[in-house]
Amino acid sequence: MKEYHHLTPALVEELKGIVGEKYVYTDKDKLIPYEKDEGVEREYFHLPEAVVLPETAEQTAAVMKLANRERIPVVPRGAGTGLEFGAVTNDFGGIILSTERMNRILEFDADKMYMVVEPGVITAELQALAKSKGLLYAGDPCSGDSCFIGGNAATNAGGNRAVKYGTTRDQIYAIEVVTPTGEIAQFGGRLKKVTAGYPLEKIIIGSEGTLGIITKLTLKLVPLPKYTVDILAVFPTVESALSLVTALPKAGIEPTCLECMDNAVIRVVEQYLDEKQPYSDKGNYMVIQLDGKSEDDVDDMCVAVDEICRAQGALEIFVADADKVWNARKAFTEASAAECPVAAMEDFVVPPDMLEKLLIELERIGQAQGVKFRGVSHAGDGNLHLDVLRRGFTADEEAAKIEAFEDAACAAVYALGGKISGEHGIGQKRKALFAKYEDPAALALMKAVKKAFDPNLILNPGKVFDMEE
Amino acid sequence: MKEYHHLTPALVEELKGIVGEKYVYTDKDKLIPYEKDEGVEREYFHLPEAVVLPETAEQTAAVMKLANRERIPVVPRGAGTGLEFGAVTNDFGGIILSTERMNRILEFDADKMYMVVEPGVITAELQALAKSKGLLYAGDPCSGDSCFIGGNAATNAGGNRAVKYGTTRDQIYAIEVVTPTGEIAQFGGRLKKVTAGYPLEKIIIGSEGTLGIITKLTLKLVPLPKYTVDILAVFPTVESALSLVTALPKAGIEPTCLECMDNAVIRVVEQYLDEKQPYSDKGNYMVIQLDGKSEDDVDDMCVAVDEICRAQGALEIFVADADKVWNARKAFTEASAAECPVAAMEDFVVPPDMLEKLLIELERIGQAQGVKFRGVSHAGDGNLHLDVLRRGFTADEEAAKIEAFEDAACAAVYALGGKISGEHGIGQKRKALFAKYEDPAALALMKAVKKAFDPNLILNPGKVFDMEE
Repeated sequence: MKEYHHLTPALVEELKGIVGEKYVYTDKDKLIPYEKDEGVEREYFHLPEAVVLPETAEQTAAVMKLANRERIPVVPRGAGTGLEFGAVTNDFGGIILSTERMNRILEFDADKMYMVVEPGVITAELQALAKSKGLLYAGDPCSGDSCFIGGNAATNAGGNRAVKYGTTRDQIYAIEVVTPTGEIAQFGGRLKKVTAGYPLEKIIIGSEGTLGIITKLTLKLVPLPKYTVDILAVFPTVESALSLVTALPKAGIEPTCLECMDNAVIRVVEQYLDEKQPYSDKGNYMVIQLDGKSEDDVDDMCVAVDEICRAQGALEIFVADADKVWNARKAFTEASAAECPVAAMEDFVVPPDMLEKLLIELERIGQAQGVKFRGVSHAGDGNLHLDVLRRGFTADEEAAKIEAFEDAACAAVYALGGKISGEHGIGQKRKALFAKYEDPAALALMKAVKKAFDPNLILNPGKVFDMEE
Repeated sequence: MKEYHHLTPALVEELKGIVGEKYVYTDKDKLIPYEKDEGVEREYFHLPEAVVLPETAEQTAAVMKLANRERIPVVPRGAGTGLEFGAVTNDFGGIILSTERMNRILEFDADKMYMVVEPGVITAELQALAKSKGLLYAGDPCSGDSCFIGGNAATNAGGNRAVKYGTTRDQIYAIEVVTPTGEIAQFGGRLKKVTAGYPLEKIIIGSEGTLGIITKLTLKLVPLPKYTVDILAVFPTVESALSLVTALPKAGIEPTCLECMDNAVIRVVEQYLDEKQPYSDKGNYMVIQLDGKSEDDVDDMCVAVDEICRAQGALEIFVADADKVWNARKAFTEASAAECPVAAMEDFVVPPDMLEKLLIELERIGQAQGVKFRGVSHAGDGNLHLDVLRRGFTADEEAAKIEAFEDAACAAVYALGGKISGEHGIGQKRKALFAKYEDPAALALMKAVKKAFDPNLILNPGKVFDMEE
């Protein structure tokens, strides 16, 4: 077991010397907002010894040099909108390094279509700036109004447009990183191709703050699609709805979003919103968002989508009221929780064409374990958000039931070529199952890489995986 | 300096026991084809001690375990079509591990649009198979008829369609890898999004065989574009031609290829082919290939491209005879060599919008150093292939002149946000300049990662960078 040290008053003074008196918090009332993220499991709440708020990469590097020298764990944190407690301290103790003061947009070139930003910029802010010049920053996590771009990069956030535009990693040209030993390193470039050494930015992005602290990002922008349409296709079965997942790409249609809601979910949402939803007696929805650069372009796609949906047995196909249909989709989490408390949230991902098999498997496992759940899927990218319900078992048996369900579900996910997390990450909550189901040789190399970046294991210890020593 | 050992007769017998008597070459005449690649610099030619041809990942792993135990360098090799001597042994000695027997297509699912192949499949073979079912494997290196898909992955090959479809890394869902210590590891998945540990496949791809030996690849396929058109736009200046590099993406036009030939190149090609080229007295070409799923789609793009070209001052815009225009483009290398022997070939890459500045800088450097060159650019992805000519200096001063030119050119490339190699790789030839100009903190981490994968540094030593010990 790694030996870590605690902060001393002398070290607190040294930290204040680096970032400024005001920017080292040690009073409990100022630490409390940093003890949690947006996950609900109270057992992971943990107060840091201090919160340090550097303003620059140089200050961040100096903090890391101190921490590395003194063996003090450092947990990098953006806006704290994660769900897996990746940006919260744990029993190793240590400090939170918050990026909230590094919040400047440094450069924006609308002609060359890129932006250079600090990690503490709110995603919605840079999206709005891009939009003001007819451009799109295509990363779009659901927490966009409050999350930081640095956190998006740390978790390789997915979100609404990932089907067409990819995840956060695909939106990033280059990053500046403070390494665990306190060096400032530059990775990547505003390049369309390169073969010159290892593109380590691709593994730092998505490493949940375990390989380095991102202090600057060069973001890719694309022309803002001028036309968008939302189609609601209603199918008699989930199976027929999910057939779109292969049929649309095969026909060369790249939807921006492809979201599936089954009949049970539609009923829960209808009840919660107290608003009649179409075909709520028997329908299963696929919400299809299309965008394009001309009206003709989008019209052509609509015609093709309509044909494909009919061929797959759709009961009805509407050009949907975007507000209404997305309101219903986004109400799921609250509606689900209101109808029955949620015991656990899953973020499984499988090849999109395996979603149907996964749902059948999960149904079987749920019945065998006496565990009930409901879910919505980002079907286009095979990502299933599952709410496991507090129903059908007693509070006493909850932990064991959930554990057995998650274990069997994970086995099914991996057997179908999937992974335990599509966009939320491993953090602290998923690391036991991740370690159990990930390819052991691959996992061993990930740990070796972690050690290569962070010889003293001081950066975000106990996240993603446990390091054996 | 690392200590390596040489093969002994006993170890040759052990290798034969692993892969079969016939598949270990030690006779000089059978080794000679493996002493070089398609690069011209004879100083890098080197005979391996043996060539070993495993048929499976298990055999490959057994070879690596032996090599790791005995400290014998192993150089993985595909078809040997590289230019940087990455797949050739060097003074460290050791064996070539050829993937030529691992040449099966294991799985092809046209509906789910993927293919699983072994590394020794010729790229053109799998392209043809995909095409037979209306699909496109979008990787398309110029050596496609002879290169192996495993080598494409090892070098993250670019090629003709990279502007629209990206490089080889973008075409790969998952890889199976034999690690330097002889483990078989699985990386990636047929997934559209994932945040579950470090995606090490992204750094193994493009590592030029220094991090692992790829023994299986799951490839992404896309619908074959039904309509393609080649446009030849003639501009009065290189500058006006290169303006397309930002103007087209800004207008939402994604060409498949965007190739620039300046007037000097056009004249050399015209002379070599003995075929009149349009506007060869004063024109500079941009070849623009567009593809799309409908004729209307491509027509709309053509109209937009025509307008943009005119706005940028084009002298004339043709819908080109594809064979003729690509024949001219592809004749460049031979035409250039026929007109004057080539002393060195460069593969610089910069942000596409910096190409013009780079050309101005190179002109200045060439004049200062008395070095002449000519080049064609994959302009759409900022990749410049430069032939440095054996003209204007004596044979005696060649080495020093070229070295001074390359050093100054590299400094200019990095100052513009570029890198030393866009698609050929570092291999042995570029490693000194790569080490000089790459960010030192990033380079140190690359070396730490290499050591993490390969503690005894037996896999492809002396490639990409030298490891200090």
